[in-house]
Parts: sequence; C-alpha cells; structure tokens
Amino acid sequence: MRQIIFMTAFKVGIIGAGPSGLAMLRAFESEQKKGNPIPELKCYEKQDNWGGMWNYTWRTGVGKYGEPLHGSMYKYLWSNGPKECLEFADYTFTEHFGQPISSYPPREVLFDYIEGRIKQSNARDYIQFNTVARWVDYLPETKQFRVIFDNLVKNETFEEIFDYLVVGTGHFSTPNMPYFKGIDNFPGAVMHAHDFRGADQFKNQKLLLIGSSYSAEDIGVQCYKHGSAGVTISYRSNPLGSKWPDGIKEKPLVTHFEGNKAFFKDGTSEEFDAVVFCTGYQHKFPFLPDNLRLKTKNCLYPDNLYKGVIFHENEKLIFLGMQDQYYTFNMFDTQAWFARDYMLGRVALPNGQERRKDIDKWMDYEKRSLTGEEHVDFQTDYIKDLISYTDYPAFDLDKVADMFKSWLKDKEESILGYRDKVYQSVMDNTHAEKHHTKWMKEMDDSLERYLDE
Amino acid sequence: MRQIIFMTAFKVGIIGAGPSGLAMLRAFESEQKKGNPIPELKCYEKQDNWGGMWNYTWRTGVGKYGEPLHGSMYKYLWSNGPKECLEFADYTFTEHFGQPISSYPPREVLFDYIEGRIKQSNARDYIQFNTVARWVDYLPETKQFRVIFDNLVKNETFEEIFDYLVVGTGHFSTPNMPYFKGIDNFPGAVMHAHDFRGADQFKNQKLLLIGSSYSAEDIGVQCYKHGSAGVTISYRSNPLGSKWPDGIKEKPLVTHFEGNKAFFKDGTSEEFDAVVFCTGYQHKFPFLPDNLRLKTKNCLYPDNLYKGVIFHENEKLIFLGMQDQYYTFNMFDTQAWFARDYMLGRVALPNGQERRKDIDKWMDYEKRSLTGEEHVDFQTDYIKDLISYTDYPAFDLDKVADMFKSWLKDKEESILGYRDKVYQSVMDNTHAEKHHTKWMKEMDDSLERYLDE
Ligand SMILES: Cc1cc2nc3c(=O)[nH]c(=O)nc-3n(C[C@H](O)[C@H](O)[C@H](O)COP(=O)(O)OP(=O)(O)OC[C@H]3O[C@@H](n4cnc5c(N)ncnc54)[C@H](O)[C@@H]3O)c2cc1C
Ligand SMILES: Cc1cc2nc3c(=O)[nH]c(=O)nc-3n(C[C@H](O)[C@H](O)[C@H](O)COP(=O)(O)OP(=O)(O)OC[C@H]3O[C@@H](n4cnc5c(N)ncnc54)[C@H](O)[C@@H]3O)c2cc1C
Ligand SMILES: NC(=O)c1ccc[n+]([C@@H]2O[C@H](COP(=O)([O-])OP(=O)(O)OC[C@H]3O[C@@H](n4cnc5c(N)ncnc54)[C@H](OP(=O)(O)O)[C@@H]3O)[C@@H](O)[C@H]2O)c1
Ligand SMILES: NC(=O)c1ccc[n+]([C@@H]2O[C@H](COP(=O)([O-])OP(=O)(O)OC[C@H]3O[C@@H](n4cnc5c(N)ncnc54)[C@H](OP(=O)(O)O)[C@@H]3O)[C@@H](O)[C@H]2O)c1
Repeated sequence: MRQIIFMTAFKVGIIGAGPSGLAMLRAFESEQKKGNPIPELKCYEKQDNWGGMWNYTWRTGVGKYGEPLHGSMYKYLWSNGPKECLEFADYTFTEHFGQPISSYPPREVLFDYIEGRIKQSNARDYIQFNTVARWVDYLPETKQFRVIFDNLVKNETFEEIFDYLVVGTGHFSTPNMPYFKGIDNFPGAVMHAHDFRGADQFKNQKLLLIGSSYSAEDIGVQCYKHGSAGVTISYRSNPLGSKWPDGIKEKPLVTHFEGNKAFFKDGTSEEFDAVVFCTGYQHKFPFLPDNLRLKTKNCLYPDNLYKGVIFHENEKLIFLGMQDQYYTFNMFDTQAWFARDYMLGRVALPNGQERRKDIDKWMDYEKRSLTGEEHVDFQTDYIKDLISYTDYPAFDLDKVADMFKSWLKDKEESILGYRDKVYQSVMDNTHAEKHHTKWMKEMDDSLERYLDE
Repeated sequence: MRQIIFMTAFKVGIIGAGPSGLAMLRAFESEQKKGNPIPELKCYEKQDNWGGMWNYTWRTGVGKYGEPLHGSMYKYLWSNGPKECLEFADYTFTEHFGQPISSYPPREVLFDYIEGRIKQSNARDYIQFNTVARWVDYLPETKQFRVIFDNLVKNETFEEIFDYLVVGTGHFSTPNMPYFKGIDNFPGAVMHAHDFRGADQFKNQKLLLIGSSYSAEDIGVQCYKHGSAGVTISYRSNPLGSKWPDGIKEKPLVTHFEGNKAFFKDGTSEEFDAVVFCTGYQHKFPFLPDNLRLKTKNCLYPDNLYKGVIFHENEKLIFLGMQDQYYTFNMFDTQAWFARDYMLGRVALPNGQERRKDIDKWMDYEKRSLTGEEHVDFQTDYIKDLISYTDYPAFDLDKVADMFKSWLKDKEESILGYRDKVYQSVMDNTHAEKHHTKWMKEMDDSLERYLDE
C-alpha cells in the first residue's frame, strides 16, 4: 500500500482535460515526483480525448451523445501568436520535436506538443473521458462538493464527493449570438464562429463577418486565402484596422438585413452569400448552482477570483483559464501550480477582506490598461505575481512581453505575412526556423506536411 | 382563500410547454372548469415561448443563452400529415379559424392553432419561460422530486419540490449523427436535419441526404421545390420508394467520403456540394438521473412506460409524447387526460407485475406490426385504450385511421402532390378546402398568405 503513504487526506475533482485541467494534473504530478504526498485526484472530460479546444471535431451543434459541442477550432487554423509566448517552462518545443520549428505552427502541431508533455506522466489514469459534470451541490456541513457526472457512453449517472473542485472547462465554447432584424430571413448560411469548420464551404462566396476580434480577423484572412469572393468585417466598437488586401474590408455595425442584403450604420448596404457571427463567447457553467458560478464577460481579470483562480464566495472552488488570453499554456501552468500549493496548504489564504482588496487592485489595474501593449503588460504582471508564490520554473517574462509587443507590430505591418516571422525561445534559447513555405502559400495544415523538410 | 378549496394537497411539476406540456395544463384546466379541485401546477419551459417544436427559431446549435437548441423545424415546413388526423377533440380548426382551411397547413398556421386553444385558459400563468430543468433528485423518504431549475435570463438557479413530475420535453431535438469515414474532410456544408433552416442555402447545390424517413423525404422534396441542383437520398435499411421526379433519386448507404465525393454500397460514387444527415434523433434527458431516464430508441411503444406514460421504475414520474408519432396533438391530449386522472386517483394503478405484463403486451403488438398501415392501427388501438379511461371527448378513431391509410396511399401516388388533397374532420365534419395555390407552386408559407383568399 505504498501509494497511500504518498497521499494527503483530501480529494480533488478536476472538470475538463484541456490545457488547464491537464496543467492541474501536471502540477500535482511534479510534486509527486519529488516524493511529496498529493491528494486523491479525479479528472472528468466530456470529450473522448484530452486537449480541450485543440481536440478538433468535424461535428457542429451537439456531439455524438447530444452534449453541446465544445470545439470551436477549424481546419487550417494556425497559432495566432508566436509559440514562444505560450511555451511550457518545463517542456520546450525543441525537447518535443527534437528540432527547431517555426513560430506559428498549425493546430495539429500544437495538439501534439500539449500531448507530448502530458504523455510523460500517468495523467491519463486520472481522467475519465466521455463523462460530463452534470450538477454540483455544495455540502456546507462537510465543506465538500457532491458532483453528479454523466457517463455518456453508458448513459449512466453517478456521484463523487470532493474537498476541492477545480473547474477548467474553458470559455470559448458557448456562442454569444446577438439578433439582428431580418437575419431570420437571410437566405444563405448563418452560423457562429463556433460552428465554422473551415473556409472550403465559402469558396467563391461573399462573406459577412460580424465582430472585430481574433475570430473575425482569422476567419476573414483564412477565407480570403482559400478563395472566398470577398470578406466584409463589421465592427461594433472599433475596426481591426489592419492593412487589408483587396478582398477584405471593414464596415461599421450591421443595422439589419433584408433578404440577402445587409445594411450598415454608415448607410451603405451590400448583398452577401453567408454570415458568420464572430461575436465572441459566454462564460457558461450549467453544472454549477448560481452561487458558485463565475459570472463575467471575457476580460483579463474576472471579478470574484482571488489571484485569478480561487472563487471569492467559496474558497474550495478553483477556476483555471477563465481570463482572456494573451498568455495561454504557461499561464494555465502558473495558475495550476498556485492552486496546487494553495490546496497543499503552502500558500496561505488572506481573509476575505484582504482578498477582496487584492481582486479590486487587479481589476482597477485592468481598467487602466487600454492598449494592446498595456494588456500584455497587465497579463505579464499577473503571471509574475503568481509565479512568485510557487516553484514553477522561472522564465524571462519581460522578454515574452516584448515578443507579444513585436507580434502586435508584425500584425499591423502585415496581416497576411506575420505568421512568416520567427522568434526565439526564452526557455531554451532555440531560434525558430522559417517554415518551408510562406503561410499564404501553405494550404495544408497537417502535422506531416508541417514537419516535412 | 377560495382558491385553496379547489386545490388538492399535492404539487405537479411539468417540464416543457410544447404540445405535450400544454396538453397537461389543458387537462387540469378542463377539470377545474367543472369545479373540481386540481393540484398546484408549475410548468417550466426553456424557450421564450410555448409551442415546443412549433416555435420556429432561426438559430442553430445553441440558443441565446447557450442551451442546446430545441427547434428542428425549418422555413417552408408544411404539415406532413392531414391536419384532420391531429385535430384536438375539444377545439376544432373551424372553431379556431372560423372557416374551412386546407388539410396540410404550414407551420405558422399550426402554431396559431395550438396557441388558440391554450390562450382560452390561464395556462400562461403556470408557465415560467426561459427556464431550464437542470437536475432532478428523487427523495425516497417523502416520495417527492427535488428539481433544480436555471433561470436563463437572470442566470439564477433555484429548486422546487414536486409530488409528481411530468416530462414533456419532446424527442426530436437531439441529433443522432453517425460518423462516416472521410466526412471530416468533406469541403461543403455538413449538418444534421436539426440544424437545417430551409432550402435557400442549397439553391443550385447538389445535395446528399443520409437517412430515409420523414426528414429525408421532406427536406429532399423542399430542396427540389426550391431549386437545388439535385437531391440524392441514401438509405440504410429501405428506400422511401416514392415516385421521384427527375432531380431526386435514392441510393443505398454511403460507405465513405473522399473530398467532396461520396461512395455508396452499390459501388457507385458521386460528387456533392452539401450533406444533410437525416438520421433521426436521440431520446435525451440530461436533467434526469439515469434510474429515472427513459432509455429507448424512436418507436411506437417505448419500454418501461405503463400505458405509454407512467414510468415503470417510479410511478410518480410521467412522460408524455415519447412515442414515434402518427397521431400527435390528440394523442398527447389522451395521454395528458389519462395522466391527470391517474394523479387525481381516479385511475387505479395495477401492481408492478400487472403493469409489466401490460407493457409487454403492447411491445409484443408493436413487434408484430410491420407495415405503415399496421403501425397506424397500432397507434389507433393505443389511443382507444387510453381514451377508455378518461372523459376526453370521444371521436371516431377508426375514421382517423382510415385517413392515415389514405394519406399513405396519397404519398405513394404523388410525393409532390399529396399535400393538395383534402380530408374531412371527424370532430365537426368540416370538409377541408383546397388551398388557393398548388403546394408545388406555393413558395410562401406565412400565415398571412395562407389565409389570403
Ligand atoms: C478558435 C480558437 C482558436 C484559438 N487559438 C489559439 C492559439 O492559436 N493559441 C493559443 O494559445 N490559444 C488559442 N486559443 C485559446 C484556447 O482556448 C486555449 O489555448 C486553451 O485551449 C484553453 O484551455 P482550457 O483548458 O482552459 O479550455 P479548453 O481548451 O476549452 O478545455 C476545456 C475542456 O473542458 C471540457 N468540459 C467542458 N465542460 C465540461 C463538463 N461539464 N464536464 C466535463 N468536461 C467538460 C471540454 O470538453 C474541454 O476539453 C484559441 C481558442 C479558440 C476558440
Ligand atoms: C422537423 C419536424 C417536423 C414535424 N412536423 C410535424 C407535423 O407536420 N405534424 C405533426 O403533427 N407533428 C410534427 N412533428 C412532431 C412534433 O414533434 C410534434 O408535433 C410535437 O411538437 C411534439 O410535442 P411535445 O410537446 O411532445 O415536444 P416538443 O414540441 O418538442 O416540445 C418540448 C418542449 O420542452 C422544452 N424543453 C426541453 N427540455 C427542457 C428542459 N430541460 N427544461 C425546460 N424545458 C425543456 C422544449 O423547449 C420544448 O418547448 C414534427 C417534428 C419535427 C422534428
Ligand atoms: N488561432 C487563431 O487563429 C484564432 C482564431 C480565432 C480565435 N482565436 C482565439 O479565440 C478566442 C476568442 O476570440 P473571439 O474573437 O471569438 O472573441 P472575442 O475576442 O471575445 O471578441 C468578440 C468580438 O465580438 C464583438 N461583439 C460582441 N457582441 C457583439 C454584438 N452584440 N454586436 C456586434 N459585435 C459584438 C466584440 O466587439 P466589441 O469590441 O464591440 O466588444 C468583439 O469584437 C481568443 O482567445 C482568440 O485568440 C484564435
Ligand atoms: N412536417 C414535416 O414535413 C416533417 C419533416 C421532417 C420531419 N418530421 C417529423 O420529424 C420526426 C422525425 O423524423 P426523422 O425522419 O428525422 O427521424 P426518424 O423517423 O426517426 O428516421 C430516422 C432515419 O435515420 C436513419 N438512420 C438512423 N441511423 C442511421 C445510420 N447510422 N446510418 C444511416 N441511416 C440511419 C433511419 O434508418 P433505418 O430505417 O435504417 O433505421 C431512418 O431512416 C417525425 O415525427 C416526422 O414526422 C416532419
């Protein structure tokens, strides 16, 4: 019974095996490897594999078992930031691929990298796939959570009791889809970016995209690259303002539709074949009672999360990855390491008032951050703060922040060419290599083709 | 406190305000009108209006609040059976419209009719909209149900306790979507019938439909009517076998896809622009623990439902409308009347063994029913049996069965013309009037145009 010696007396439930949930498992594993006791762990994932958003699916709407589909990724999706900004501090790209690769790999390559790290551990043993968290009750007497799970394959429900609950279910899955007058009679395809599965369907079509953030930018550029007859991006607050090629343009917000014609705030109108809503996502936690729900829009510092992870109303509840993201994988890591050390009792929790003050301080800081560069600085400072509490491998965050700022400029200079740039790893100093083919000419996003020299 | 005098001492929760849930409210209302006591009633509906499947939405995937969308109906959907077969016994089409109408009205007209009856009552007061049943616990000590609801507008959860729970959540909403090799790389639109919103999107496109039941038939015919470049229906078990016009054909099952090319079991292959899966639906009850779940495929007599309504494992749980449907609205009524009288203690429940025997008898009868005509007879007998227990207005069911059989023949003779036929009401003997325009020429399915003389 050697295992028991290395276990603490409490039990942790993790919901979701995307990058955030996996980071939590990895954090505990690294502790265990040092010979320290870790709690009993269970992770439940509704998809049939790990990787979260990076686990591509051809399906839309609901999955095989009728659950709302998690995946929002699509064919021909390439990283939209330099991989050097998201690199794990404890597992570099060079360690994984054995050779330098470019700075903007496609989805399959990033999936492979995520999987590479976690496969080194026995994390899979902790995860039950095809199992969805259905409902959570908090039991105040014992300060525990009763969680109902639904095994989708067996069509069977069961419950588990946990001392801590870690929610890593992502927040780019539940479409925010506003209504525009007349959209109900638009004759062509109407979908949210969540259901977009690649540009092929829109070849030779005139496309209207509503929204002006990453999804609009990337879907617009992809459809241009893959042969749409024209892309119009309609913004609410601000245009993206890139130097667009002929074939992509921006317009103020749609006011309404008549048949296949869209009318815009500037008084113009235009006919379209299809409309894709790139209007972002909702934080949605159908399995949590509303007093345990994180209620926030997409931002850098959601309210009610101490250090961005511990729920203010119930300190046994932990959320990972709920922020809008410049940093991704390594930010989830620093959150998971912090959460781990907190659960292990190494990070003391200040009283409620102090926590509130700390949250307010960060929220105030976010409010004062207005430009892209300031947002990068904000999230860099947030991660620095988290890292200061744990033994997550230190890395040169200022240099990463600089890379993000160069990336912002690269995009400004060339929205079609920025993915041809290369950066240098702050983890192992590897210089990225240029991809064998210019991004605009590269129509194949497979791992095989990518690694082909 | 006059109201209290008229209330029995128990409380009934109804989930869903589609035709089934509304039938339950109507059944109790008709009892109350006679001056008899009724239980306390609460009905919860996740959509923002009643009418269930008949409440059309332009959305696909998930709704405004991120819940899986209920609606599978689409533009230009007309009744696919004579309205005389679904007519309420206590509220005729003529009473509602004040004039004879045709036998195959479009969706909006049927919605208006459903609403017409229920608007005569105070049913709306019992219904809370935009509220989804999230989780049900059965409390064995008190033999009650604790139900967690989620108010989608307020993002607030709350619980209610019920003595009886009536589930009327439908079963044509959760797509059954099998995987075919290569479908993940099909370049055109791929969707389930659930997300089909009308033929416009497929104008001039070559369309492949998989499945060979009502959805395939109707979507195929609609797309043909509205200008698709060709429709191929691919069947697993049996072809529909209609006399198809040039432009619609049937093929055995797809084996796989390569790019935009589909390969069929007969060794042929063909290129398509889009694929619509008409492969039916799953009975799905995410809010029920699995021991209260009805587990069945689409059939005329699902197992574990005594008289098709009372759950065999827990007699306080009632399901309405869970059968495959020839009869619809009036069948839901007879079920609701039966359920009402059972809850009011007027219909005695035999012991478990007797119930089991009764269920087996019906299931055995279904097994012996093979043809469309035999299925009609089966469901006719089922309804006759139900009606014999209650005071639901008797109507000439044999004549309705005959109409169904004529309808089957009408379709065989002319799949494009059967909706031009007219029938006679068994409720008030009204002869339907021919629609002013032949169905194949009628491109406008609005209520306004329909009632225009
Ligand atoms: C279109 C798109 C493109 C992106 N591109 C990039 C990029 O180029 N670079 C980058 O760094 N980031 C990108 N991102 C951000 C991406 O969200 C993160 O990289 C990362 O996937 C977030 O990890 P997560 O674990 O927090 O959430 P997710 O990856 O979303 O994983 C959450 C997991 O929880 C599971 N889950 C949800 N609900 C339940 C439940 N009730 N029960 C059980 N399991 C549940 C899900 O199935 C999923 O596996 C992109 C996001 C989108 C939407
Ligand atoms: C494409 C299509 C065409 C059809 N055409 C015809 C036709 O021509 N003629 C005909 O007679 N029948 C037709 N039908 C059959 C149709 O299903 C029935 O007419 C009828 O709508 C069934 O009524 P119901 O109340 O049982 O289910 P539904 O109409 O499906 O209503 C169920 C209700 O429950 C609600 N609900 C579901 N889950 C929850 C939850 N967790 N919490 C709260 N509320 C919930 C839903 O929002 C919905 O309002 C058609 C069905 C489909 C799919
Ligand atoms: N790897 C890739 O290439 C790639 C591709 C796509 C997405 N992603 C990732 O996916 C995540 C989500 O990005 P996202 O662009 O989908 O969401 P997002 O960044 O949250 O942006 C939402 C957009 O929708 C707009 N919007 C919201 N409500 C609207 C309304 N009612 N009317 C009009 N516009 C409205 C917003 O406009 P306002 O500015 O007015 O609020 C904003 O432009 C990001 O992390 C991104 O990096 C990555
Ligand atoms: N008013 C209208 O015009 C209209 C229009 C559409 C639908 N509806 C209603 O909607 C309801 C549902 O009808 P529906 O046609 O969607 O569902 P359905 O009647 O349950 O039929 C499902 C079909 O999918 C096929 N199928 C299932 N799994 C498959 C697989 N793995 N591979 C290939 N084929 C598969 C079945 O084939 P097998 O025969 O081999 O099992 C069957 O043909 C009905 O009540 C119908 O009346 C009405």
